[in-house]
Amino acid sequence: MTKDHTISIIVVGASAAGLRAAARARRRLPNARILVIDQGSFISYAGCGMPYFVSGDIQSVDKLRTTPYGLIRDANFFREAKGLEVVTETKVERIDRDAHKVHCKSMKTGEASVYSYDKLVLATGARPIVPPGVPVDNQRITTFRRLEEAISLKKSLETGKIEKVGIIGGGLIGCELAEAFSALWGAKVVLIEAAPNILPGVLDPEMALAVEAYLKSENVEIHTNCLCEDITRAGEKVTIKIAQTNFEVDCAVIAVGVRPNSELAADCGLAIGKTGGVVVNDKMATSDPNIFAAGDCVEVKHLISGKSVNLPLGSLANRQGRVIGSNLGGGNEWFGPVVGSAAVKLFDMNIAATGLMEGSARDAGFNVGCVWGTFTDRADYYPEAQNIHFKLVFDRQSGRLLGLQGYGKGEVVKRVDVFSALLKNEGKLEDLMDMEFAYAPPYASAVDPIYTLACIARDAVLEEIQPIAPDSRYDGRVVIDLRRPDEMKSAPLPEKDILEIPFEEIRRRWEEIPKNKPLICICAKGVRAAESVRFLKEKGYSDIVYLGGGCLMKPGVK
Amino acid sequence: MTKDHTISIIVVGASAAGLRAAARARRRLPNARILVIDQGSFISYAGCGMPYFVSGDIQSVDKLRTTPYGLIRDANFFREAKGLEVVTETKVERIDRDAHKVHCKSMKTGEASVYSYDKLVLATGARPIVPPGVPVDNQRITTFRRLEEAISLKKSLETGKIEKVGIIGGGLIGCELAEAFSALWGAKVVLIEAAPNILPGVLDPEMALAVEAYLKSENVEIHTNCLCEDITRAGEKVTIKIAQTNFEVDCAVIAVGVRPNSELAADCGLAIGKTGGVVVNDKMATSDPNIFAAGDCVEVKHLISGKSVNLPLGSLANRQGRVIGSNLGGGNEWFGPVVGSAAVKLFDMNIAATGLMEGSARDAGFNVGCVWGTFTDRADYYPEAQNIHFKLVFDRQSGRLLGLQGYGKGEVVKRVDVFSALLKNEGKLEDLMDMEFAYAPPYASAVDPIYTLACIARDAVLEEIQPIAPDSRYDGRVVIDLRRPDEMKSAPLPEKDILEIPFEEIRRRWEEIPKNKPLICICAKGVRAAESVRFLKEKGYSDIVYLGGGCLMKPGVK
Repeated sequence: MTKDHTISIIVVGASAAGLRAAARARRRLPNARILVIDQGSFISYAGCGMPYFVSGDIQSVDKLRTTPYGLIRDANFFREAKGLEVVTETKVERIDRDAHKVHCKSMKTGEASVYSYDKLVLATGARPIVPPGVPVDNQRITTFRRLEEAISLKKSLETGKIEKVGIIGGGLIGCELAEAFSALWGAKVVLIEAAPNILPGVLDPEMALAVEAYLKSENVEIHTNCLCEDITRAGEKVTIKIAQTNFEVDCAVIAVGVRPNSELAADCGLAIGKTGGVVVNDKMATSDPNIFAAGDCVEVKHLISGKSVNLPLGSLANRQGRVIGSNLGGGNEWFGPVVGSAAVKLFDMNIAATGLMEGSARDAGFNVGCVWGTFTDRADYYPEAQNIHFKLVFDRQSGRLLGLQGYGKGEVVKRVDVFSALLKNEGKLEDLMDMEFAYAPPYASAVDPIYTLACIARDAVLEEIQPIAPDSRYDGRVVIDLRRPDEMKSAPLPEKDILEIPFEEIRRRWEEIPKNKPLICICAKGVRAAESVRFLKEKGYSDIVYLGGGCLMKPGVK
Repeated sequence: MTKDHTISIIVVGASAAGLRAAARARRRLPNARILVIDQGSFISYAGCGMPYFVSGDIQSVDKLRTTPYGLIRDANFFREAKGLEVVTETKVERIDRDAHKVHCKSMKTGEASVYSYDKLVLATGARPIVPPGVPVDNQRITTFRRLEEAISLKKSLETGKIEKVGIIGGGLIGCELAEAFSALWGAKVVLIEAAPNILPGVLDPEMALAVEAYLKSENVEIHTNCLCEDITRAGEKVTIKIAQTNFEVDCAVIAVGVRPNSELAADCGLAIGKTGGVVVNDKMATSDPNIFAAGDCVEVKHLISGKSVNLPLGSLANRQGRVIGSNLGGGNEWFGPVVGSAAVKLFDMNIAATGLMEGSARDAGFNVGCVWGTFTDRADYYPEAQNIHFKLVFDRQSGRLLGLQGYGKGEVVKRVDVFSALLKNEGKLEDLMDMEFAYAPPYASAVDPIYTLACIARDAVLEEIQPIAPDSRYDGRVVIDLRRPDEMKSAPLPEKDILEIPFEEIRRRWEEIPKNKPLICICAKGVRAAESVRFLKEKGYSDIVYLGGGCLMKPGVK
């Protein structure tokens, strides 16, 4: 496409993807007519920041719609500073692809209007899923997607109307809200999740269990494997019904996920994928070359699984919007397959993950290996060092990196971001071992945790130093506790059949260990146990594993 | 090499590289004879942690030689827990390659001894450079390399003997020590650096100047471009002589860099490179296939410049040691070319860099482009968001990423680490734009700063939206201040000829700007200025640039 100064561009949706596309197109096409249409009244607000507004971390809602240089992002701002025409409270009802027209209706007056386009950008976003039959009233029973909902919840909290809240859905938003309600306001929170664990799309069960234990220690009540069967309101009280029991709360927030708003696209015959998202190519063009789509309403390809996925993340929406805007203006940018990085901070715990989880890696046909590790996030002698815990998923055959999950009070996200860069390059264990970290004691150990994870994985594959998952049962195995005597004393293991041999004595005392019995080596972080497995294998013990990540990774252990 | 259980391995040097090689070899060769020889009495201590011991952040020196699982790393630990024989206070004086023997002398008794090896590992480290004629007495005039020196300095601080200290050398160690002396102990620090700026191997001048301004605000006195001509001691006072003046201090610490201890290798005829480091291949083998070398005594290849470099970093030493140990035990690991990541924390400022600096990139023949940016390290509405400042160095022709430097009170190191992963894959601007960050408001903006840097670079190349360095002079250009009126008022620009047009008014008021005059657009972070350059170019202004990173990156500006 060339710089056609008379081109008319219409963008449907004035959030991250749409406005980014529009602003970028404006920069490259100073004379084009660019119109952005949105059905809401607030535009361009940071939806991801809403939990922090509810929690009180952010005082004013305007903070969520302010540029880095301090201007409020309203229709006037986009007109004055960005040269964009933005029409709000107007719904696009139909696209006429043959005539290149969009048919709209004013949400205020009901008035109809029609606009012509040369190029059309769909950034229609997603909408919260609501279980059938639930009477959402936006007050006592609400979803959490629009700024108005956040404002209403905050008002209820401020006026003391919410002492107990039920959150349906333990995903990223649900968990963030659990903190938001309880941290500042002291509301009692009941978190209900249908999957076997919270954060089901982000963490494997053994990782999620540790986060659950932490949330419980912060007084969040959690019910997993728990399908919400009904929600009803009676006066000022809401009853949430699950199979086993009922919860009576002051407010129920539904956060069970979102669904792409792809009806507008579907109705005019654009290709829609299995995920329900609009199908786009790497230029973000739909099946109609004059129509582009970006943000929560599209599906994209996962780099590792090769599958189509709908990933409603503001970070992707922004980048996709730029690609469209640049290309509308004659550029040549692309949006590559994704690896699906996610992060969430819950109280003082940092949680992040990227790539495939164990199950999805298996589904994608890999020969999946997993290892675990507990580390300090900086030099262990550095005063502020904190523990962090990781799970690495890789392909045993090729050594290809598949995924990383981490949690802990220390710096987790950095490692996940570095790992994501390696995933993008289809990196292998050896690439992780070749990584160079900017090292200083306040930031890392001399060898970074994820480098060490790669070493652990290599040892598992090449030398069969085999970890088992932190939540495994190991009945029937003789437990060898390799910790220091003071560790054993202060945090005794729950098992009965324990042989206590501190790691530094294993080379002297190994003959105390019974032959011909299955064994499990356990220490605090996994290092001593792994090294002991290797040593004992050399001594002829064969049925021997170790507890991955050490007992500090066992769910519920501090 | 196969698993020969009768092999005899000698390792010279019991620090990171040597002990890692030895421990790894032991794991793979349970029956080998492995002997580690060191001339010091303390072994395996974290040298990088010494500044934090001096500062008082770390109370006991034992913390610097404790494993992550709480055991002191002394000769006994390595014998008991690791199955290694470690001989301390013994100097290897000569290697007889023909006879496969090392000749040693006890540092305590002077007694000679000879050991035979099948494989030899040299991890002899580096020693501090001392300007000729300086009478180092390890008390009032000292280097800072050995644990004994750190202990002595701390004792002097504790007993109030040091009220004023002169640090010769403003590199990583010199700067860390500046904080260590002043933060807790309140010692007056004079930092003397021969190069035009501090951290000369890490930051380009315009970046270093900002760090200098910060250190000065923390009461560190800095003299750059300043060659230390002489250091003399008279009683309890030390005089440091530079060209212009003398400083009288209680103590002088010399931290002007290190030199590889490669004499032992050179004396037995092993290849030594131009840097003075032992030449090794990617298996860390020297020119003698039975002799390996690792750590501060070797030189390695820089991935981007292709040049040999000596990078005395504990992080590299550890990884190199593992490569040797694995391969001695029949493995097949390699150590790839380096990109040279570095980090340092000074008071509350985080500083990190990776890859080539602007000058070294030019020297390496690239068509160098540079862009700058000021950002918040997390969502700008998040309460704890802090500013961070970056410089990106790239090749204008190919878009290849060459280097990244950053500083600020926010999270800098993560971005440098991610960038380093891309450098390792010879990434381009488009790869940076394809990066996926784990996004949540407490960790990042929806688009990460270094993604935005790539966008800025693309705009500079493809659309000639040209920044100039934050420390540039721009006499003769009309300054267009695009900040909000309240920003202009609270931090007025020093220039005389200023046209004040807030960014949001530029589309209305641009005709106030004189034609045919050279222009510079300035805002706080660079975003509004860059966008205005683009807009004004469309309007026919041609001689127009903007201040990269905004006035928040101008050295000395808060």
